[in-house]
Amino acid sequence: MTEPINSNQNEGKPNIDAKKISRRDLLRLAGVGGAGLLLGAAGVGGLFQTQERSAAKPASKAVKADKDQIVSFYGKHQAGITTPAQDFILFAAFDLTASTLDEVRKLFQAWTSAAASMTNGEMLGKTNDNLNLPPSDTGEAEGLLPSRTTITFGVGSSFFDARYGLAGKRPAALADMPAFGGDELRDEWSGGDIGVQVNANDMQIAFHAIRNLARIARGKAVLRWTQEGFQRTSGADPANATPRNLMGFRDGTGNPDVNDDGEMNKVVWAAAADGTPWMDKGSYMVVRRIRMRIEVWDRSTLGDQESTFGRHRDSGAPLGGAHEFDKLDLEKKDEKGKPLLPMNSHVRLAHGDGTVKILRRSYSYSSGMDHKTGQLDAGLLFICFNRDSRKQFIPMQTKLGQSDLMNEYVVHTGSAMFACFPGVREGGYIGETLF
Amino acid sequence: MTEPINSNQNEGKPNIDAKKISRRDLLRLAGVGGAGLLLGAAGVGGLFQTQERSAAKPASKAVKADKDQIVSFYGKHQAGITTPAQDFILFAAFDLTASTLDEVRKLFQAWTSAAASMTNGEMLGKTNDNLNLPPSDTGEAEGLLPSRTTITFGVGSSFFDARYGLAGKRPAALADMPAFGGDELRDEWSGGDIGVQVNANDMQIAFHAIRNLARIARGKAVLRWTQEGFQRTSGADPANATPRNLMGFRDGTGNPDVNDDGEMNKVVWAAAADGTPWMDKGSYMVVRRIRMRIEVWDRSTLGDQESTFGRHRDSGAPLGGAHEFDKLDLEKKDEKGKPLLPMNSHVRLAHGDGTVKILRRSYSYSSGMDHKTGQLDAGLLFICFNRDSRKQFIPMQTKLGQSDLMNEYVVHTGSAMFACFPGVREGGYIGETLF
Repeated sequence: MTEPINSNQNEGKPNIDAKKISRRDLLRLAGVGGAGLLLGAAGVGGLFQTQERSAAKPASKAVKADKDQIVSFYGKHQAGITTPAQDFILFAAFDLTASTLDEVRKLFQAWTSAAASMTNGEMLGKTNDNLNLPPSDTGEAEGLLPSRTTITFGVGSSFFDARYGLAGKRPAALADMPAFGGDELRDEWSGGDIGVQVNANDMQIAFHAIRNLARIARGKAVLRWTQEGFQRTSGADPANATPRNLMGFRDGTGNPDVNDDGEMNKVVWAAAADGTPWMDKGSYMVVRRIRMRIEVWDRSTLGDQESTFGRHRDSGAPLGGAHEFDKLDLEKKDEKGKPLLPMNSHVRLAHGDGTVKILRRSYSYSSGMDHKTGQLDAGLLFICFNRDSRKQFIPMQTKLGQSDLMNEYVVHTGSAMFACFPGVREGGYIGETLF
Repeated sequence: MTEPINSNQNEGKPNIDAKKISRRDLLRLAGVGGAGLLLGAAGVGGLFQTQERSAAKPASKAVKADKDQIVSFYGKHQAGITTPAQDFILFAAFDLTASTLDEVRKLFQAWTSAAASMTNGEMLGKTNDNLNLPPSDTGEAEGLLPSRTTITFGVGSSFFDARYGLAGKRPAALADMPAFGGDELRDEWSGGDIGVQVNANDMQIAFHAIRNLARIARGKAVLRWTQEGFQRTSGADPANATPRNLMGFRDGTGNPDVNDDGEMNKVVWAAAADGTPWMDKGSYMVVRRIRMRIEVWDRSTLGDQESTFGRHRDSGAPLGGAHEFDKLDLEKKDEKGKPLLPMNSHVRLAHGDGTVKILRRSYSYSSGMDHKTGQLDAGLLFICFNRDSRKQFIPMQTKLGQSDLMNEYVVHTGSAMFACFPGVREGGYIGETLF
């Protein structure tokens, strides 16, 4: 009767649902638990926190008091696509070793259950206290908040080879990518039967997710490659501005509005009418590991940098504009008659005639040094989602690869494309529409 | 007269010191600036935030409203040693290419000025708006809060070789490390003339710091190796508990109290009386890149894991204890007469007779995959500070290398030691006591 409500001693008893607790209930519980709440000016959020900190032991399950912490795993679409970008990513590609399609299905079912638990901030499995078994959860995320974790699953073109009898189901939109100008692709950062994008506002939680998915996959799939990434932490950016990439420029300004359903249906979500019914409400994810030639970039003038992007570094405005979200003016010319927005600037080429869009969801990466060159291995883990890569990403990147001024400063070292399934209904599983 | 106080148009005018502004002043400024503050229930912190967000352009300098955001670069000791651990680290080792000691001194002077600016959240230099020059700051941290950035400088034993005539100044305590059991050291993560530890609550800010220090060093020093690391973000851990490492166990429980000056003088801070006057109030930093055999660990039973650490995974308590900070009881035996704390458990060996301590300040790392083995390259970027490695870290690690149960699960892939200078007085520079 004297334990604080989050004490481990309460394990096995029904959870107290924080969302249903009124402020009065909290005060009553505080009295019962003797948890030493600091009242005064604090709001309800503050009460919860105090109760957490004053517990005899840290909470063994992540706390669900703040529903902003949780992005539901279930829904019409998968989370992690139009979800506002979290602070971190751990991307992982897996190759299947399963011998039958049934094993693959079982893997996806097990992953579904694990992903739903982890995005809720719950520990995996029930054998975390049995000394005679390996713990069912690896433990490094214990006690942490859900941190808006999302886990997004897709399958690559190799998933549809002869092994599992799915060749006939391969979407035409999951096209092989041509060689683009600027490609120096390496196997160690390319391809994969399965792609899993984990995002969270905590890197340790993202690591925990991929590691536990890999454990669950034992005997059925192995990791092929992984890449960590970050943005500025949202807490460090009071203006909540468009994040800057490692070139110092804002990245994502031109993104379509994720709250505009019509636009998302046009740009992001595949439809049954596109020819692959099992991808209805899914999306195609392109992952490119783009190394920046940091040292070359850093020696170039601000003028060259701005001409390369076609934007002002400070404001993010298109060259000749004053504000980040100013419309691109492709016609504007300087006093000598030269276009203000250089013909081969990144933003001009990517914009094209304005009809082809993608949803960018990229992260910066820093992966130590390239010991062959003595330079930093850092850049952009470019990720985008589109409805049909044949009509969106591929033509856009073809044009960029040919003449983007940016090519002087970047090299594409990894590449992959995945068909991301539609969302999962509760009780269903990832890829159910395909199997 | 109508610009919000953080507008760029105010550059060059004296900064308004947020700490001296009363709430009434704020309201007055809001009226003058027309910044559209939302008043209502928000406190002063909220007012600041609103003002930030409503500025016509994001602040071009990091905002200093919250003094908790800044850890001063100047002081008796360097910051980043007894400073409570921030969420992220970017560690970098440099090798000198300078031809004279005077050049090295100039590098340290330039680094001092840059480090003081960056820890204040300021952009570097004054040529960030000149189109004809490379910007003096690379820009990716523009508009971000200082985020408790610390930058800690040290020099390795190779700094004292024949090149700069400093051989006679090498501290005896900056000893060569012997080969330890479990070492599989690689050059690419070992050594360095100079070690720089950057910590911040934001990874992008940490990257920005190392990158700009490397820029400033051009012609005088080159990067030798770098390693990123993280802890759970403090925002994800409402209990503010001792962070867990990637084995799922708490790391740092046994640390000495950084608020106990007597203890810090004993454990961490070198003194003139130790024989190297220029290191008075400095400290010796040991960096070890410790890869965990994640897949092997994850297959071991909870019982084996707990015996390895000598602690309970869930609570962090010593085996046989109930609470994380329970005193280690080396004598306690089970009903069969076996010590509850196994003789070769990590905590027992590291504790020894309790007289030898170090200050641990470690981070987890995740660096993609080891493509030779197909396994995750992840583990611990172990960092500790001690007053004399010959008496503290080296004997401790010798014992651990010989018989720590942990050795089955880890391999040390990188190693370095640095003599971290005393703190810098305002107007002084890093290493001034040595030069």
